[in-house]
Amino acid sequence: MADDLMQKVISLCKRRGFVFQSSEIYGGLKSAYDYGPLGAELKRNVINTWWRDMVHSREDVVGLDASIIMHPKVWQASGHLSGFSDPLVDCKVCKERFRADKAPVVEPGQEVVIELADKGRAKVALQYINEQFGVELQRDGRKLNGATAGDRPYVCPNCGSPFMSDERNFNLMFRSFYGPVDPMGALANAIEGGEFDGLKGGDLRSKLDSYTADSTVYLRPETAQAMFVQYANIQQSMSMKIPFGIAQTGKSFRNEITVEHFIFRSCEFEQMEMEFFCEPGTEDEWFEYWKTFRTNWWRKFANHPEKFRARAHEASELAHYAKGCYDVEYEFPWGWDELEGVANRTDYDLKKHAEHSGTKIEYFDPVERKRYTPYVIEPAAGATRGVLTYLCDAYTEEEIEGPKGKDTRVVMRFHPQLAPIKVGVFPLVKKNGMPEKAREVVEALLSRGINASYDAQHAIGKRYRRHDEIGTPWCLTIDGETMENGTITVRDRDTMAQRRISVEDAVSEIESLLRA
Amino acid sequence: MADDLMQKVISLCKRRGFVFQSSEIYGGLKSAYDYGPLGAELKRNVINTWWRDMVHSREDVVGLDASIIMHPKVWQASGHLSGFSDPLVDCKVCKERFRADKAPVVEPGQEVVIELADKGRAKVALQYINEQFGVELQRDGRKLNGATAGDRPYVCPNCGSPFMSDERNFNLMFRSFYGPVDPMGALANAIEGGEFDGLKGGDLRSKLDSYTADSTVYLRPETAQAMFVQYANIQQSMSMKIPFGIAQTGKSFRNEITVEHFIFRSCEFEQMEMEFFCEPGTEDEWFEYWKTFRTNWWRKFANHPEKFRARAHEASELAHYAKGCYDVEYEFPWGWDELEGVANRTDYDLKKHAEHSGTKIEYFDPVERKRYTPYVIEPAAGATRGVLTYLCDAYTEEEIEGPKGKDTRVVMRFHPQLAPIKVGVFPLVKKNGMPEKAREVVEALLSRGINASYDAQHAIGKRYRRHDEIGTPWCLTIDGETMENGTITVRDRDTMAQRRISVEDAVSEIESLLRA
Repeated sequence: MADDLMQKVISLCKRRGFVFQSSEIYGGLKSAYDYGPLGAELKRNVINTWWRDMVHSREDVVGLDASIIMHPKVWQASGHLSGFSDPLVDCKVCKERFRADKAPVVEPGQEVVIELADKGRAKVALQYINEQFGVELQRDGRKLNGATAGDRPYVCPNCGSPFMSDERNFNLMFRSFYGPVDPMGALANAIEGGEFDGLKGGDLRSKLDSYTADSTVYLRPETAQAMFVQYANIQQSMSMKIPFGIAQTGKSFRNEITVEHFIFRSCEFEQMEMEFFCEPGTEDEWFEYWKTFRTNWWRKFANHPEKFRARAHEASELAHYAKGCYDVEYEFPWGWDELEGVANRTDYDLKKHAEHSGTKIEYFDPVERKRYTPYVIEPAAGATRGVLTYLCDAYTEEEIEGPKGKDTRVVMRFHPQLAPIKVGVFPLVKKNGMPEKAREVVEALLSRGINASYDAQHAIGKRYRRHDEIGTPWCLTIDGETMENGTITVRDRDTMAQRRISVEDAVSEIESLLRA
Repeated sequence: MADDLMQKVISLCKRRGFVFQSSEIYGGLKSAYDYGPLGAELKRNVINTWWRDMVHSREDVVGLDASIIMHPKVWQASGHLSGFSDPLVDCKVCKERFRADKAPVVEPGQEVVIELADKGRAKVALQYINEQFGVELQRDGRKLNGATAGDRPYVCPNCGSPFMSDERNFNLMFRSFYGPVDPMGALANAIEGGEFDGLKGGDLRSKLDSYTADSTVYLRPETAQAMFVQYANIQQSMSMKIPFGIAQTGKSFRNEITVEHFIFRSCEFEQMEMEFFCEPGTEDEWFEYWKTFRTNWWRKFANHPEKFRARAHEASELAHYAKGCYDVEYEFPWGWDELEGVANRTDYDLKKHAEHSGTKIEYFDPVERKRYTPYVIEPAAGATRGVLTYLCDAYTEEEIEGPKGKDTRVVMRFHPQLAPIKVGVFPLVKKNGMPEKAREVVEALLSRGINASYDAQHAIGKRYRRHDEIGTPWCLTIDGETMENGTITVRDRDTMAQRRISVEDAVSEIESLLRA
């Protein structure tokens, strides 16, 4: 059922132009996605609604839109260069590369079964294990019995083998080279010039890295650091008084080894982050405030608010810089998972950047006449995950009585503020002035900033169902009566009820429904 | 005067929170910029207005939001991998690296003067040139006389020397590595294992590149290619009929050697591109249509519409795939320069992607019952350049009579639809219920989607001037009379005229001014 829902959502996303695999005609790129016409609107609406409620509506928060490629020292100061890595392991039997911390757990010494793709591979593996590790196993079809787990508490997630390489840390930041340099060209010259002769191991690696070091930059793995780095510029230019926040939305990049659940975890994703700077001693209060505010924010646009919860991190889950953290979780088809983190980051980040940059990053309280490093509460949400959440939340199937008997109606019950198209406007037929009238209504709606769409393709029933499937909350139909008495029908997506209103009132009617 | 204007705009941008240098506390990153609170709003408004006029308001255009990292084969098919490069040269005297096509032009054999930073460097250079090239020059202070230009029609833009390396092509795409691989680790092992022993030149370079080839990806240098790659998915899922367009806004990346004019040319920038697919034979008509539409669009929001023009490319300027191209240019402080390109790309891109991907990319016309590869007209605008354009267009200084005699008023005359803040709302004093009333007005404006800002800092005159400098079109002041008779003052940014209106009418008044 859960898998079923995900499959249905993924299939609707492709069929109706919400989400496509990136570069699909070239076989796609691992877990990269493009947002089609309706997905782009849905994502814009999630992000713009967040911006409205987190920036425009608040006197104490201002925005920022920083570059994706930042100075590499930012990532040294933040700890991402040394610490932002996953433990990677290679399986020696099936060659799978996987994350040790996500692999199936076993007890040391426990008997494990290795299962290959087919009999042939099992035979090869049997011999290989015997030769390489001196272990005699028993083959049963494509399974190998008789192996036992070693010291490490996990096995290969692909074949179950306990025969693995050592763990090594794999940094998740995407690196690139900046400036008019060609590090590979310089490296080629150095190799040809004999500079690497006789070098081994760590020395060789250091020498190698020295050719790229000067030009290496990273794609940001989070938007947050820009708020710390620009804290002083923003506080001063905008005369902000503490407590205040800096908010940013935008793309971040992580070279994830495990990508999963459609757009949930992918290498390129979009964030909506805010850093809220407050006086030391007030951070616990603001931490609770933002946890509640953010959890309620997500619920506000949902059909199933009970599927959102704020879960406090155990001490063991906390990042080294955090004093406390809540995950705002949603019950996805595969279970509860993270949608947003609300963290008490203390004064860790500002102090680190002050130390590494040699600049003072502080706040001077003009009333109390005291100077301090602010504490930071960070509500950091996934915009891409928000899109997936509301796709799952909206998907519904209903048994209805169709023209040919029982039928299934698929409805995306998006909150009107998030729906890609707010109003479908239909001429009943393509004549008698109806298309012109319909286009007038579309114009009037657009002029009020309401995304309306003219649609004259196929029979009216089919148009309703198409707009149900893409989550359009209201459809307006211009028919013969409209031309006679100036009334049109408004059809409600969720109840399918229709009523007639005056065409003059249509815009204000929709406006007030949208604000409801 | 021109430099003067640029300097004033740059300084206002930093002072008022429009644009900061990226990672400034770390010394900045070459030509990378962060948009502060007001710059982020201005950029959002430029992009959202484009989206409204190019996507929402048009039945024939839909949106797309594709990933920045696309499949590398996309760039092979588009020609970016082989052709998207600049000719780079190193000066052997001052070590400057520069673009040959942007360097000062000289006649072969012409006498040139080399000018170093100081006398000491000139002495060193004199000796170096003598030893390396056997040329005897005469030193005069920090200048060296007596050199002549060689075969190449340019000299070093830094010191004027004609002693240079060969030209080599430098690809402008940022590259990165995708997936759980560490190409440098594999390379280190290969060097240690002797795989490079005895290799030279091209062979060595090929071997080197083979270690990175499988995992190399590129940051998109333009958003356009995604529209071609997703053409079929979008046409089908949205049942689009030709002619129709696919539009996208977003970041692109070019490892520019020459960065210049503040945010005009930088390595990370934002685009607003649309690919308009039409029937072969109709492309010339659409080409003219989009040239006119786009030029007028830029003018609509400008104080100086005469500073925009559409310039047709000479045949020699045309890209190999283009049948025609207009540059929409703005007269920046340094002269006319490109803001947008409107190109007739023919069927070049779709055919290339069809060829490289092995898929059919065509259109079937259901009425004429014929199949063809559409032609493409591309209006490709710079969002970042749009921001700079409107910053330059808006900047004005006025001599006014201030409280202490003659004074200069700086006003950013942004079009109201682009202004970061639409309305400043001020309580005259922070008592007698005025702050509460002012916040009510802000709430009412925000609930209609109008970005209003409460401001109670400093004297009222100072607040007006601050909002003039950030381009807020209207200020509403709540004073003693408001509390008595329910009227407030509306102050106009450009005329500085004030008039009283009923507080109840304030929202609808601003709404109609904004739509004017």
